[in-house]
Amino acid sequence: MLAAGSVRDEVDDAAWLRALLDVEAALAEAEADAGVILREHAERIAEVCREGDFAAAEIGARSVGVGNPAAPLVREITAKTGGESARFVHFGATSQDVVDSAAMLLARRALEPLRADLLACADHAGELAREHASTVQAGRTLLQQALPVTFGLTAAGWLSGLDAALARLRSVRLAAQLGGATGTLASLGERGPAVLTAFSARLGLAEPVLPWHTERSRIAELAAALGETSGIVAGITRTIVLLAQTEVAEVYEEADGAGGSSTMPHKRNPVAAIAALAAAQQAPGLMSTLFGAMAQEHQRAAGAWHAEWRPLTELFRSTGSAVHWLRTSLDRLVVDPERMRANLDVTRGALLSERITTELAPQIGRLAAHDAVSACTRRALAGEADLAELLAADEAVGKHLPLERIRDLLDPARYLGSAPVFVERALDAHAEENKKK
Amino acid sequence: MLAAGSVRDEVDDAAWLRALLDVEAALAEAEADAGVILREHAERIAEVCREGDFAAAEIGARSVGVGNPAAPLVREITAKTGGESARFVHFGATSQDVVDSAAMLLARRALEPLRADLLACADHAGELAREHASTVQAGRTLLQQALPVTFGLTAAGWLSGLDAALARLRSVRLAAQLGGATGTLASLGERGPAVLTAFSARLGLAEPVLPWHTERSRIAELAAALGETSGIVAGITRTIVLLAQTEVAEVYEEADGAGGSSTMPHKRNPVAAIAALAAAQQAPGLMSTLFGAMAQEHQRAAGAWHAEWRPLTELFRSTGSAVHWLRTSLDRLVVDPERMRANLDVTRGALLSERITTELAPQIGRLAAHDAVSACTRRALAGEADLAELLAADEAVGKHLPLERIRDLLDPARYLGSAPVFVERALDAHAEENKKK
Amino acid sequence: MLAAGSVRDEVDDAAWLRALLDVEAALAEAEADAGVILREHAERIAEVCREGDFAAAEIGARSVGVGNPAAPLVREITAKTGGESARFVHFGATSQDVVDSAAMLLARRALEPLRADLLACADHAGELAREHASTVQAGRTLLQQALPVTFGLTAAGWLSGLDAALARLRSVRLAAQLGGATGTLASLGERGPAVLTAFSARLGLAEPVLPWHTERSRIAELAAALGETSGIVAGITRTIVLLAQTEVAEVYEEADGAGGSSTMPHKRNPVAAIAALAAAQQAPGLMSTLFGAMAQEHQRAAGAWHAEWRPLTELFRSTGSAVHWLRTSLDRLVVDPERMRANLDVTRGALLSERITTELAPQIGRLAAHDAVSACTRRALAGEADLAELLAADEAVGKHLPLERIRDLLDPARYLGSAPVFVERALDAHAEENKKK
Amino acid sequence: MLAAGSVRDEVDDAAWLRALLDVEAALAEAEADAGVILREHAERIAEVCREGDFAAAEIGARSVGVGNPAAPLVREITAKTGGESARFVHFGATSQDVVDSAAMLLARRALEPLRADLLACADHAGELAREHASTVQAGRTLLQQALPVTFGLTAAGWLSGLDAALARLRSVRLAAQLGGATGTLASLGERGPAVLTAFSARLGLAEPVLPWHTERSRIAELAAALGETSGIVAGITRTIVLLAQTEVAEVYEEADGAGGSSTMPHKRNPVAAIAALAAAQQAPGLMSTLFGAMAQEHQRAAGAWHAEWRPLTELFRSTGSAVHWLRTSLDRLVVDPERMRANLDVTRGALLSERITTELAPQIGRLAAHDAVSACTRRALAGEADLAELLAADEAVGKHLPLERIRDLLDPARYLGSAPVFVERALDAHAEENKKK
Repeated sequence: MLAAGSVRDEVDDAAWLRALLDVEAALAEAEADAGVILREHAERIAEVCREGDFAAAEIGARSVGVGNPAAPLVREITAKTGGESARFVHFGATSQDVVDSAAMLLARRALEPLRADLLACADHAGELAREHASTVQAGRTLLQQALPVTFGLTAAGWLSGLDAALARLRSVRLAAQLGGATGTLASLGERGPAVLTAFSARLGLAEPVLPWHTERSRIAELAAALGETSGIVAGITRTIVLLAQTEVAEVYEEADGAGGSSTMPHKRNPVAAIAALAAAQQAPGLMSTLFGAMAQEHQRAAGAWHAEWRPLTELFRSTGSAVHWLRTSLDRLVVDPERMRANLDVTRGALLSERITTELAPQIGRLAAHDAVSACTRRALAGEADLAELLAADEAVGKHLPLERIRDLLDPARYLGSAPVFVERALDAHAEENKKK
Repeated sequence: MLAAGSVRDEVDDAAWLRALLDVEAALAEAEADAGVILREHAERIAEVCREGDFAAAEIGARSVGVGNPAAPLVREITAKTGGESARFVHFGATSQDVVDSAAMLLARRALEPLRADLLACADHAGELAREHASTVQAGRTLLQQALPVTFGLTAAGWLSGLDAALARLRSVRLAAQLGGATGTLASLGERGPAVLTAFSARLGLAEPVLPWHTERSRIAELAAALGETSGIVAGITRTIVLLAQTEVAEVYEEADGAGGSSTMPHKRNPVAAIAALAAAQQAPGLMSTLFGAMAQEHQRAAGAWHAEWRPLTELFRSTGSAVHWLRTSLDRLVVDPERMRANLDVTRGALLSERITTELAPQIGRLAAHDAVSACTRRALAGEADLAELLAADEAVGKHLPLERIRDLLDPARYLGSAPVFVERALDAHAEENKKK
Repeated sequence: MLAAGSVRDEVDDAAWLRALLDVEAALAEAEADAGVILREHAERIAEVCREGDFAAAEIGARSVGVGNPAAPLVREITAKTGGESARFVHFGATSQDVVDSAAMLLARRALEPLRADLLACADHAGELAREHASTVQAGRTLLQQALPVTFGLTAAGWLSGLDAALARLRSVRLAAQLGGATGTLASLGERGPAVLTAFSARLGLAEPVLPWHTERSRIAELAAALGETSGIVAGITRTIVLLAQTEVAEVYEEADGAGGSSTMPHKRNPVAAIAALAAAQQAPGLMSTLFGAMAQEHQRAAGAWHAEWRPLTELFRSTGSAVHWLRTSLDRLVVDPERMRANLDVTRGALLSERITTELAPQIGRLAAHDAVSACTRRALAGEADLAELLAADEAVGKHLPLERIRDLLDPARYLGSAPVFVERALDAHAEENKKK
Repeated sequence: MLAAGSVRDEVDDAAWLRALLDVEAALAEAEADAGVILREHAERIAEVCREGDFAAAEIGARSVGVGNPAAPLVREITAKTGGESARFVHFGATSQDVVDSAAMLLARRALEPLRADLLACADHAGELAREHASTVQAGRTLLQQALPVTFGLTAAGWLSGLDAALARLRSVRLAAQLGGATGTLASLGERGPAVLTAFSARLGLAEPVLPWHTERSRIAELAAALGETSGIVAGITRTIVLLAQTEVAEVYEEADGAGGSSTMPHKRNPVAAIAALAAAQQAPGLMSTLFGAMAQEHQRAAGAWHAEWRPLTELFRSTGSAVHWLRTSLDRLVVDPERMRANLDVTRGALLSERITTELAPQIGRLAAHDAVSACTRRALAGEADLAELLAADEAVGKHLPLERIRDLLDPARYLGSAPVFVERALDAHAEENKKK
């Protein structure tokens, strides 16, 4: 449940192994590109990395003794390569070069399905915004009904947040890592920068200005972008779960075999939204671990670097899961405009009673207007009668406002302000955002 | 100590009050701009906001009952304004509009001294990088000495991180907030968008596509940028504190009256770096609170919104403090190149013994080379003699490598790889970054 | 709002200063007790500490340079003491001894009003549990109505959590700190342990086995107890806020001048519960900072120790505020048993339809029973008629179950299981817990 | 690396499945105990649960649709049970009853190897404390050398922290969960409490006062105990890593094939301590997620409950790993008392120069004493000569203190205060603690 969707597969053990091997292959090839090693050695090493049969579990087990997975993997590649080429496996690199570059490669790969799912969510929210641009709904502040909105505006707010997350994810800086033991690339002599350029290009990652073994801003920004994505999902799904309450029932998730309770047919658990909410709640803690691990000393940190792998993987997994579940929830979402309209009447017109006060004030004075309207509202809330009728029957009010005008003023559909404009603006911004991807 | 420097004053109670008043003034003026209210009312309100005598403590105390500071403040402004103008105070806005806009204004103001301090740190790191581009230092991985670096390269790494933080802080999206009770700006009729445009312009904040009462990506990105800044400071100052250890002593902070122990004259506590480290450690937890608070429902959240104020203020305070202390530490920093050079001899040449193996391998075979060098290194580490001499005296080694060549190979200053190039690149990137500000 | 109630005053700057002074006084007196210094010196020092006029702000400002408030305070006490006695101020202690002991003293003092507020909450929850032991309410799982409960059982669950928090707060280990510069109490010669014993006794704190300058389990346990308290408050107040929703309206907060919206008379914002929820959300992040700061090295940590003060103070403040607001919310809470009963009918009897299935199954088979009941439930949910009547009219059901029996089975008040027993058990446990305090 | 040791196996998928099955078996048996179902049904169900062939992966996959693993598992057990007994599988329970009880069972099982490893660490620390009770070492505050300690005292501090963690882990409240859909155990009629008693007893878990579906203090306390354990490990291992620095070299880890660098024979990476430090850093973030998830509403939370599983599992895994690695590090630890003594001379006697001042002050006045000693200390630090000799040669000092007395005063081994007493006290406390387990 907290590891659902397609991002999960891009950060599992097999994906890590694949990335590590791709990095070792790219390193050898980049060194051939830069004239550091012979092309034939690079080709042999790359062939082994791409076609060799490596076992993730075994390498993981052997990594325990030395503190990272690169060392046992290099040993295995070296053994499989054989011959003179074997001497050039991992040449000039340090373990952290390989692990960091692999992490960035993994991130690039995992971001693809994540952004695809997120874009699908945004598109879906956009459709809801367009379709329900005129669907009147109770606006709710502090979980109390307040002035009316449209469900389209609610969805446009979701869209805007999803677009913000998409923009952030697009802006993360994924760079290759190559510095050798202490960041000087000493064993590559003068060809260090040339190898770095070729290596970065082959991995499809940015070339860093200098090795960033203990400068972890890239990891932090990646974590923040994932955390922001989770946060946006949390806000949307909390709202969905609340709208799906038995007593509110403005939306529900409809799906075969999911969320229905066979023994309680009236229950419509919004399972996907709940799963998204649960997954999204993992992010703040995992982020804080990654930001806390930025305190890395000297040329390679004792512990703080090693502390990154697991929370980064988990953060991808949980954020991927959250977005997957939001997408699922939106796919299943059934909106009930009639119930939305009906819920607006729970307060028997009180939501808009202030409009009467405003209209009346110039005629009978603010205080008198306020008192008259408050009195009627209290009687309406107590169930005595319809607010419009009570107001029309009130001496102070009825004299100045005919029933028809009162009904107009109390009509939620006539007091939506800029809601339609804001929906349009959000849709336009989304169209712009889409062009950038 | 955790609230030092000039950022603190930009986020204290007085600064919050100032920002709230500026927002109310800008609102009235924007409504006059858009023809919603008369210019004379706007001018009266703005005058009261700018010149009135408001007491932060009192308003804070009265905000308790209603859940936010806007309501009692509006009441006070209204009272002070008097006359017909009083009716247009806060017109069409909701409390959250004012508090969110004030938070953004506060952020804009607090970011100025923060970025100034951070830029000063970066410039200082740049000077250290340039000045010490040839100062040889032991590279340290996992807190063990490894291949040599230059202190210039170490400082260039600091510079690169500080530039990354500067870039992130520049990219935060600060936008005005204006939506009225539920984000429709209903009471402004058709002039909502026009007021929003004018309001944003007057505050010097971006105009949002739509109200973002429960879409908190801006707060999250601001928090992440501050958190990243703190993280970069933590990495640098942890390194400074370690370099200042009694047994390492490669740098120390020199300042009148700070850090010195009158009773222990040998102690040179790097007080500023320690304070920076302590302040920087506040960020991950505060960030996690702010990211956790993104789960905001409907049109205004019950609790999660209110949960933002304090950690956002604290995050500014602690990050501002961290950057202030880093700047102080760098101002005080004395670098001891001789001690850096001397520390490289702690391992009696062992750091570079691998170079001998590499040079020797083609001549006597990799294994024999490795064994011979390992044996000599162990004897050198045991204190028997200088490694170069032991190697020269070794039968297998001495035959192929003369003492002079051995000394060359073991000389840290001759094995710095691309360190000078990387320093140049970091300085160039900083110059580019500087142009953007 | 996030710093309300009486705990706040126990952790402000003045309280910190008071605690630091009390510690210096206790130290001098303990040293006289143990025969290390003359009684007259101790008396003079204690007099200065207790009656001297010290300014928190000034000492705070001067603490910046040296990294902690103890040093400037000691200088001030020494100056005020004068004469020969001055030499014995702070004798044998290190700054951390004073700051840590003061923190523990502060904690002891701040825990008193916190526990008093918390106990008041628990008592109040107990009264609700007793009073509403028979008040039927819809149980809600995943925010969907499920089997009925009593509001008394809901409140008994709150009581149980509050008692758990009280027990945890009672169990925190508050100990004095005294070790001198590196934990050996070297300057006290052989009298170190005797001074430690007397010092602890005078402060009303436990005597530690040995100095705990970098062994921070006490701080962690204190933080965890406060965090647990906040968490319990969060759970209760989230439930209150949900029960107070316009569409649910089973409870509301009633208070003069608080939460009511003058312009929206129907709004009943549960302001106190919302404030509690916002305050309680501060805890997890602050806790994580304190637990992260446990990584303290050697005899005094460079940074991690200094990183504790602010989050510990903030954690007290926010937890104190959360408990204060919960107490306020419970004081204001109006329970509406009629609405609770009415909400049970929202699903038109579907909540208990399973009971019919169970009763019917032995007679007509499980599948047939399930199908018949499901069909009627759907029709009832669609608004066709009352479920009981539909069932009685159904051929398969009506044959075996008379309407009266159906009504009995569907009556929420007759399907409350062990709710009354559990309420009793919770009240008994609370009575036990109360005896321990 | 972050999932090493034996705790990991107690919280993996297979262990979760095992626990879930054990809970279903215990439930059936408890219901037979209480006379709710026939013994033969219970026996059949228990047999299936204990001997059936269930596949964790498959059940995990099917749990996705319904939001928790209990539902598909119950379906599978029911299918395998067959016959009339099948009707009594999971009778009267809700999914959360099973998942929560399984989590508690898992916790009980995982705590066993965790506490065994932790006890081994404590015993080892105790041995170091005893063995090195007289091994003089530089005390270090703020990473600067301060007054001397013994390594035994350092280790006694570790011991004391480990004992605190053991005590906390022993005190966690593990209770069974059983409440049915909404905590009333309605379908068990009057036998609910009897079943709860039997069920708790069969699982070896405490019987709760009432169901705790949304009262999560137990989870919080468990998380806090694990977090405290991780924090204690972090403090110890950070110190070990610092003591193992090339320039300090007071301890190192000695192990075949671990941590040695074949190409850098002088490097002695304390791999186990580093791994412990990395694993321990996971705790604060995971804890904050669990404490944040305490905000659970009504009778079962929508999301916050589901958010617990993964971080709780991860917290066990990482804490288990941290303790495992600390144990490994202590097993491998080689202490170098000679180097400890030698490092005390890095400051050429300055550490104890204050003792001279104190001795001299009564004779020549505090100021004169301070000046004379400071001058000599500066000259000694500058390498001019041995401090003792400089002092003896100083006119003001030499007149009152003979060289021999000066040497005595500057001897670290003669200024250890209560270090031996504190070591004894820590060992005694550990012996007491051990009796309790």
